[in-house]
Amino acid sequence: MNETMVTLVGNAATAVEFRETATGGMARFRFAVTPRRRDRETQLWTDGPTSFYTVWAWRALAANLAGSVAIGEPLVVHGRLKVREEERDGGRRTFVDVEAVAVGHDLSRGTAAFRRVARVEPA
Amino acid sequence: MNETMVTLVGNAATAVEFRETATGGMARFRFAVTPRRRDRETQLWTDGPTSFYTVWAWRALAANLAGSVAIGEPLVVHGRLKVREEERDGGRRTFVDVEAVAVGHDLSRGTAAFRRVARVEPA
Amino acid sequence: MNETMVTLVGNAATAVEFRETATGGMARFRFAVTPRRRDRETQLWTDGPTSFYTVWAWRALAANLAGSVAIGEPLVVHGRLKVREEERDGGRRTFVDVEAVAVGHDLSRGTAAFRRVARVEPA
Amino acid sequence: MNETMVTLVGNAATAVEFRETATGGMARFRFAVTPRRRDRETQLWTDGPTSFYTVWAWRALAANLAGSVAIGEPLVVHGRLKVREEERDGGRRTFVDVEAVAVGHDLSRGTAAFRRVARVEPA
Repeated sequence: MNETMVTLVGNAATAVEFRETATGGMARFRFAVTPRRRDRETQLWTDGPTSFYTVWAWRALAANLAGSVAIGEPLVVHGRLKVREEERDGGRRTFVDVEAVAVGHDLSRGTAAFRRVARVEPA
Repeated sequence: MNETMVTLVGNAATAVEFRETATGGMARFRFAVTPRRRDRETQLWTDGPTSFYTVWAWRALAANLAGSVAIGEPLVVHGRLKVREEERDGGRRTFVDVEAVAVGHDLSRGTAAFRRVARVEPA
Repeated sequence: MNETMVTLVGNAATAVEFRETATGGMARFRFAVTPRRRDRETQLWTDGPTSFYTVWAWRALAANLAGSVAIGEPLVVHGRLKVREEERDGGRRTFVDVEAVAVGHDLSRGTAAFRRVARVEPA
Repeated sequence: MNETMVTLVGNAATAVEFRETATGGMARFRFAVTPRRRDRETQLWTDGPTSFYTVWAWRALAANLAGSVAIGEPLVVHGRLKVREEERDGGRRTFVDVEAVAVGHDLSRGTAAFRRVARVEPA
């Protein structure tokens, strides 16, 4: 209840970092979203400032991200948004995380050959 | 202003139908979303009823969908939701459309090899 | 899993219909969403076609909607989107429902005096 | 294009701060979102960690927020999500902003008396 779902359209800003854990695979990468707007006067498209997120994934999605996504590739990321604040090195740091539910290469930017992997239901 | 953005996680229920038009390519397919819930008593996952949508795409996204997506494949679809009512054969029919902004194969269900296509800015 | 969350910004197209049921109150009303776009040539705002939804609510939200919302009032509706097809009178009918999670009067269109009601957790 | 829309369901964590600017009113407040989950073993609801956002509004929405929302009140906030990083006091700080499009009191938590204000179209 009250979870914040979000969909990001942008690009992988780092490679996917993958790790095996006791409860299965975990993947993590930075993600960049740059909105584009049409200038009202010139009618030209211009880039707005980029927002960065850390995307987290587990299990099958983590493994498939590690095997499919390279730095710079355009993606659609759908997941739960969380903002964490932590004390670090004597200062307060803010982290913006998305726990991914579904991720795909953005087909408005290229083509993809998909291969299904046998599905295991989350326990 | 007031556009309804939606993100669907589901499967292509038909093949992608592609057509050239005066203003560029157009693609269309039916899309099925089946939510899954954990039963509170049994703790087992069960399927809820399936919702069907018609997904529409234009230009590069249309061409890339036609070249990348086969019937049955799992996708993430992000776009503008519209509900249309039309008189047809003497009755009132309701159509539920999503104008796709970004679409990708759902990597929680398989792997994908992506190939970037040169980008053309919408005019 | 895979539920489709949606946020609608529009107006109540009917009064709220409220009913007591065995499991608590239930409310229902029709909701109209009319996107507005700026015309690229004239720079004027124009209305796009209106999409209609049926919004459903239960328990406290149902009772508070019945006590707070009049026909025509502007609302933000956040909930689960479902598309149902049913056989009716020998034809196939399509219904577009939103199971509301949170609803509020749109404060971009007016002011509101809020009064908290004691909260009962869903069982 | 590529803007990140988000809907937050939570509570005003500060009072609304309102300021007149050269281009009209501007309002700002902190907003807290605390997801609730049902524990799989105990079947009880528990709070997850709270995420904090800064909500920004302009023009009519800013003025109506200032006149309608008190600290602690439950709201639905719909708007554009932005993550900014800035150098501050020799360190890098991260800010998570939502530019509000529509905001309303959450009627799952109480009742509201709404009063429409004459609408002025954004220029």
